Amino acid sequence: MAPTAMSSVSGALSRHQTIEERRRHWLAAFRTVRAETERRASFLSAEDQIVQSMADASPTKWHRAHVTWFYETFLVREHEKSYVPFDERFPFLFNSYYVAAGPRHARPQRGLITRPNSEEVMRYRAHVDAAVERLIENVPEDMAPRFFEILEIGLNHEQQHQELLLTDILHAFAQNPTNPSYDSNWQMPRGVTGPREVNDFVDVPSGIQPIGHDNAGFCYDNELPRHEALIPRMRIARHLVTNAQWLAFIETDGYRTPSLWLSDGWAAVQTDGWEAPGYWRQVDGTWHVMTLGGLRPVDPASPVLHVSYYEADAFARFAGKHLPSEQEWEVSARAGLIADGFGMAWQWTRSAYLSYPGYRAAEGALGEYNGKFMSGQMVLRGSSLATPDGHERLTYRNFFYPSARWQFSSLRLAEFP
Amino acid sequence: MAPTAMSSVSGALSRHQTIEERRRHWLAAFRTVRAETERRASFLSAEDQIVQSMADASPTKWHRAHVTWFYETFLVREHEKSYVPFDERFPFLFNSYYVAAGPRHARPQRGLITRPNSEEVMRYRAHVDAAVERLIENVPEDMAPRFFEILEIGLNHEQQHQELLLTDILHAFAQNPTNPSYDSNWQMPRGVTGPREVNDFVDVPSGIQPIGHDNAGFCYDNELPRHEALIPRMRIARHLVTNAQWLAFIETDGYRTPSLWLSDGWAAVQTDGWEAPGYWRQVDGTWHVMTLGGLRPVDPASPVLHVSYYEADAFARFAGKHLPSEQEWEVSARAGLIADGFGMAWQWTRSAYLSYPGYRAAEGALGEYNGKFMSGQMVLRGSSLATPDGHERLTYRNFFYPSARWQFSSLRLAEFP
Amino acid sequence: MAPTAMSSVSGALSRHQTIEERRRHWLAAFRTVRAETERRASFLSAEDQIVQSMADASPTKWHRAHVTWFYETFLVREHEKSYVPFDERFPFLFNSYYVAAGPRHARPQRGLITRPNSEEVMRYRAHVDAAVERLIENVPEDMAPRFFEILEIGLNHEQQHQELLLTDILHAFAQNPTNPSYDSNWQMPRGVTGPREVNDFVDVPSGIQPIGHDNAGFCYDNELPRHEALIPRMRIARHLVTNAQWLAFIETDGYRTPSLWLSDGWAAVQTDGWEAPGYWRQVDGTWHVMTLGGLRPVDPASPVLHVSYYEADAFARFAGKHLPSEQEWEVSARAGLIADGFGMAWQWTRSAYLSYPGYRAAEGALGEYNGKFMSGQMVLRGSSLATPDGHERLTYRNFFYPSARWQFSSLRLAEFP
Amino acid sequence: MAPTAMSSVSGALSRHQTIEERRRHWLAAFRTVRAETERRASFLSAEDQIVQSMADASPTKWHRAHVTWFYETFLVREHEKSYVPFDERFPFLFNSYYVAAGPRHARPQRGLITRPNSEEVMRYRAHVDAAVERLIENVPEDMAPRFFEILEIGLNHEQQHQELLLTDILHAFAQNPTNPSYDSNWQMPRGVTGPREVNDFVDVPSGIQPIGHDNAGFCYDNELPRHEALIPRMRIARHLVTNAQWLAFIETDGYRTPSLWLSDGWAAVQTDGWEAPGYWRQVDGTWHVMTLGGLRPVDPASPVLHVSYYEADAFARFAGKHLPSEQEWEVSARAGLIADGFGMAWQWTRSAYLSYPGYRAAEGALGEYNGKFMSGQMVLRGSSLATPDGHERLTYRNFFYPSARWQFSSLRLAEFP
Repeated sequence: MAPTAMSSVSGALSRHQTIEERRRHWLAAFRTVRAETERRASFLSAEDQIVQSMADASPTKWHRAHVTWFYETFLVREHEKSYVPFDERFPFLFNSYYVAAGPRHARPQRGLITRPNSEEVMRYRAHVDAAVERLIENVPEDMAPRFFEILEIGLNHEQQHQELLLTDILHAFAQNPTNPSYDSNWQMPRGVTGPREVNDFVDVPSGIQPIGHDNAGFCYDNELPRHEALIPRMRIARHLVTNAQWLAFIETDGYRTPSLWLSDGWAAVQTDGWEAPGYWRQVDGTWHVMTLGGLRPVDPASPVLHVSYYEADAFARFAGKHLPSEQEWEVSARAGLIADGFGMAWQWTRSAYLSYPGYRAAEGALGEYNGKFMSGQMVLRGSSLATPDGHERLTYRNFFYPSARWQFSSLRLAEFP
Repeated sequence: MAPTAMSSVSGALSRHQTIEERRRHWLAAFRTVRAETERRASFLSAEDQIVQSMADASPTKWHRAHVTWFYETFLVREHEKSYVPFDERFPFLFNSYYVAAGPRHARPQRGLITRPNSEEVMRYRAHVDAAVERLIENVPEDMAPRFFEILEIGLNHEQQHQELLLTDILHAFAQNPTNPSYDSNWQMPRGVTGPREVNDFVDVPSGIQPIGHDNAGFCYDNELPRHEALIPRMRIARHLVTNAQWLAFIETDGYRTPSLWLSDGWAAVQTDGWEAPGYWRQVDGTWHVMTLGGLRPVDPASPVLHVSYYEADAFARFAGKHLPSEQEWEVSARAGLIADGFGMAWQWTRSAYLSYPGYRAAEGALGEYNGKFMSGQMVLRGSSLATPDGHERLTYRNFFYPSARWQFSSLRLAEFP
Repeated sequence: MAPTAMSSVSGALSRHQTIEERRRHWLAAFRTVRAETERRASFLSAEDQIVQSMADASPTKWHRAHVTWFYETFLVREHEKSYVPFDERFPFLFNSYYVAAGPRHARPQRGLITRPNSEEVMRYRAHVDAAVERLIENVPEDMAPRFFEILEIGLNHEQQHQELLLTDILHAFAQNPTNPSYDSNWQMPRGVTGPREVNDFVDVPSGIQPIGHDNAGFCYDNELPRHEALIPRMRIARHLVTNAQWLAFIETDGYRTPSLWLSDGWAAVQTDGWEAPGYWRQVDGTWHVMTLGGLRPVDPASPVLHVSYYEADAFARFAGKHLPSEQEWEVSARAGLIADGFGMAWQWTRSAYLSYPGYRAAEGALGEYNGKFMSGQMVLRGSSLATPDGHERLTYRNFFYPSARWQFSSLRLAEFP
Repeated sequence: MAPTAMSSVSGALSRHQTIEERRRHWLAAFRTVRAETERRASFLSAEDQIVQSMADASPTKWHRAHVTWFYETFLVREHEKSYVPFDERFPFLFNSYYVAAGPRHARPQRGLITRPNSEEVMRYRAHVDAAVERLIENVPEDMAPRFFEILEIGLNHEQQHQELLLTDILHAFAQNPTNPSYDSNWQMPRGVTGPREVNDFVDVPSGIQPIGHDNAGFCYDNELPRHEALIPRMRIARHLVTNAQWLAFIETDGYRTPSLWLSDGWAAVQTDGWEAPGYWRQVDGTWHVMTLGGLRPVDPASPVLHVSYYEADAFARFAGKHLPSEQEWEVSARAGLIADGFGMAWQWTRSAYLSYPGYRAAEGALGEYNGKFMSGQMVLRGSSLATPDGHERLTYRNFFYPSARWQFSSLRLAEFP
């Protein structure tokens, strides 16, 4: 069953609600999202929260502060003229990439910022929380639509960082020879993937099909405009590729057969010494993998995780299949044809991350949210075990460089007639 | 008027021709293509022919030998059992990237190979030419179809390197502070681009349209399978963007306005210090550009050349337009709607270089020709002033990384309603 | 006045002391050194203690653990057969560069180790402290000489890391745009340098002079063998070069005059954009410098700090002087001719860090302590404000690459007749 | 027998010669040196002469032009007011590193300069030759001393480049998988090294000894000032280390034993994959080496060539010996104690390349000749098979980075009592 847009955050928010109902709704949503970030950080010490293990990852403390800066910059400073910033140095430290929002600290150096410390960041959060809550309760009714619109973006933005908080700390822990656990009780979600027939392919609805968000409820600008696409006749796998299937790929010399690989992918295999998915390592002859619960034996029935696009593409070629396009994925998911589309792992598609026809980024700093990344990256669809509840959508377009392996990224196959 | 496929090479080769007619046809085609390579090299001394100015470029001498190796490897060794190779060391030296065809010399080191010298490469060419011509005249009739098919690929392959020979030597000369000319009599072709209205946009045929090659005549595998695509309602510019328009972009701080750029593009602007198209430099306050005829003042009426995809995309945003997709380009060109589609400059599209639905690369080494490069690159359509006669096609898909500027690359705009 | 060797650590340890007196002596010395490390770390939070701001620097927590590993590995494991290691994973994490002592964690990744956390490292220290103290009190008398010898090396080793702890955290804080203080009450020591005549040069004792340690008391192997050197007739400055003098160098375009610089130094100036000593930055038109007390205005009367050898050499050329050789420095210091030789800043000499005639490194892992670094580095003499009391010696040879600026490094001049 | 300074160039030039005798003398010397450069280049085609195989090496054509530029810049432009430069663009192209002589082309790009071509460089040489010869014959007598002094530097400078011409082309040819020969008739010189006792050590004259040039005849500034040094009691090997000895080092795992290596040296072993001297490679299980005569089996009796300082130092430690200091080498050579000091291979010493006491570089651009390289490099003494006749001297200080292997570099051992 496919999720509805933004359900847990925005709930069943009717257009006919009173302003007071809307204030109550958004206050609850704000508190829910803010609490989830702190819940995720609560498994980590102040020491854990400062580490940055590569330029693409960020410290937990930075995530906690950056999402706060987002509300402060785009919401509070805009709507509360008398707002006293918590610290004038924070915008420089916690702006990520919004050029229009002013200068910012170099991304690869986020791990050097021991001060402000974790406690100060907690106070920063409380300071901004109070301001946001005041505004939710008091913003004039004529300003409310724009205010709540930006707030909703801020909440979705924070949810994205909730996922990154987990992927980034897992990357950091995977660099640590002592294999720390984020949460020793962590369990892989039980999807429907598993001990059933591998080649369960279903027909994708073909012909002219609607693609993109219908703008009822929240979505990002890159899911727009809704438009029509022509879907070819083809079939998509009901299930995600499993670790068992991937082990066969390894054992059949998949990582040593250049003809299976894209040229850039083969270069990555050789340069980075890939011989298994990310975080896999052999312990006494058995493949293990770093998880949020620490180093664990690879479970054959689980979907493979931490594969790059290059690996997904090579595996598909090895299997005599293809990856689906993002449009093929979307119409299949909308039709309820696929299992584990959400909540297990993002699924690489064979689509480059590009604009939909006629797409135009928003004006101002928020226009930098998605549009400027439309080159060199590939689209992933679905959502992962790390995606917060209610953040997933049928039309959601996630994107990463084809070499990225630190996300919870997997694949499902497709085949042409 | 749009070109027909491979006209100058394969001519009007009827399926009903006799074997003797076909032998005559291919002998003429072979000699024509081989002579064109030598004609292009004839402007260069042996010294000029050895230089490699970056890893992506190759020396003229290497191009001359590599295209020869292609026939020797895929044609002569296959069909002439008694063939005595010219030199057993050459396959290692002159294989480009065909992993299945054996080990090869590191690409960035091609400029170090002073020996074999230019004269030996000339003798290598003559040796292989003789063998190919013997085979054209004597290949048994039952083997002929496969033989001529590979020969045709070899001729098209050589034509691609004829273009690269020019782009690569221009790059080398552009590194030389003395600004050498490849041919001091060289002139920019006279296209229809120029002193006419800038905003001449025409409607693109919309709806379901055929895309890709119909397989009548030669094409590369990446132009297949022919399939249908849904073209949105939009308009495409009849003309290429001119230097005059680009000068306005420069003067309006286009290279200093981050909001116009993709994130990766802005990084390139800053890292590489771009402030104008490739090969542009100011001499006494006037923009000049390195051409095949040496350093010359920028001609405002000519199409802009040597822009990367990043620049093309930024310019389109600056102009409030878009780049066309490769499908939009193809249907517009097929309908005869665009000027200077061929023979001036390759035109960046907003399409990533990916496979057509159901694409499968050929078996064996020749399968490495196109398919393995399908990640990270963007499609260019049309052809350029350096493209040999008859090599262009409506369905031709050229591709380069979005940062590439050493090709004769330009752009035409598109707009959505 | 020149210091005596290892006074605060080993005190006036007579050869005629009883074993009990020696046990008491070493127990006190051990506790003093161990406490000083913790005192230095006590200014820093657990977050501060994890940061590694470049490959050459290490986190405070790592320093605290590494010096502990040194005792555990070379002392406790050797002498206490029943010793139960605190954690079998720690030797891998906290070995620095002793190849003979086993594999080790990659140096540039020390900042990624959030776990073991600061508290576990504290417990590791306590565990090893207890073992060392047991051994100090109980080591059999016949083993005692070797035991105390290694212990003394361990104490000196820890003192070296006490200095690095400060230089490394200062480097980290200098990367933080909020300019944190290590200790806001920190003050530059009051040396005799300052408002006195700049050109106060004194004759260096010339002719054949003894160089190196006489082996009475502790020294490192690189201070041996004591040997004779021929000192030319020349003069050495009584004082260190001051910030006031350095400001004149800056203002006279010292950083923009290539003829003043070694070729490698000029490359560093250009590549790294040097225009002042390390940590200097202009705030509202005034030069400030990051200190252990935070960002402060540059004090003209203080010795210049954080200059590389390249800068020291360029300054000497600018001043029409030279740097002293390490031998010239040593005989001058032994003769009591120089001021602020100790306790302010290490002083670059014009001597490369090479072996004394007939030098041979010790056997085993401890032989890696000094000898294997004898290429590419330059000798600094004296000691700095960060050097722990009693660690300095007339014959002490400190060494760093000529580009290094994160140490408390300065210079004094010399002149030839 | 030790060579006398500059004999073949300057001959027995008496201070009492007439101006006419001096003109004749220098004319002959000039022609001899100029002819030797062309003789060395004559083994190479125009193609061979353009290749640059690494940033540290230069093309033959560049060497031929650069040494010519040196006369043009420092001699002809100074003394012939009416001189018409051959080409105003050449100073930019052919200045090597003389910052004071104006801007220059980036060193790593010398291999991109196909034009001016070899023939133009020949004409440039002829143009400058004519000017120099005119001046030799006509320079006014009062200007003659300064003129001939600079000329002599120019001749020595050209001789240095004659050696580099060979080492650089050998490096280029060693990158070519076809193993070209510079001169297929080339033979290793027959030194006295060879089948005699390996451990033939002789006492070095100890005590206070003169070091450096006595300024009678030509020398470089870095050989001055002559001064006294204290030589310890030690012994030096009569012979160079042979390939046979080096094979034993390889076979005893010398390249796999970290304790033998300096830390930076071990890093080089691992990063660059060293397992034998430079240009050594195994062919069918036998060690071969690239020579000026092409790829040849390693001759056990010949001195080892193409070893870095790191390797020389590791070998000495392996052998239980040391390298001599440059002073120890010089007094031994002056006393006639060593065999094959000259004409076989440069010999690494354990001395860093630093200034002699009181050294001051010359004023102006020529002051950049030697002085600015005094950091990070090690001294080699003697001369090599590639050194032109008469260029060697007892006091000659050659210098390279400790990682350099493309010179004809070898070693002789020393031992302390």
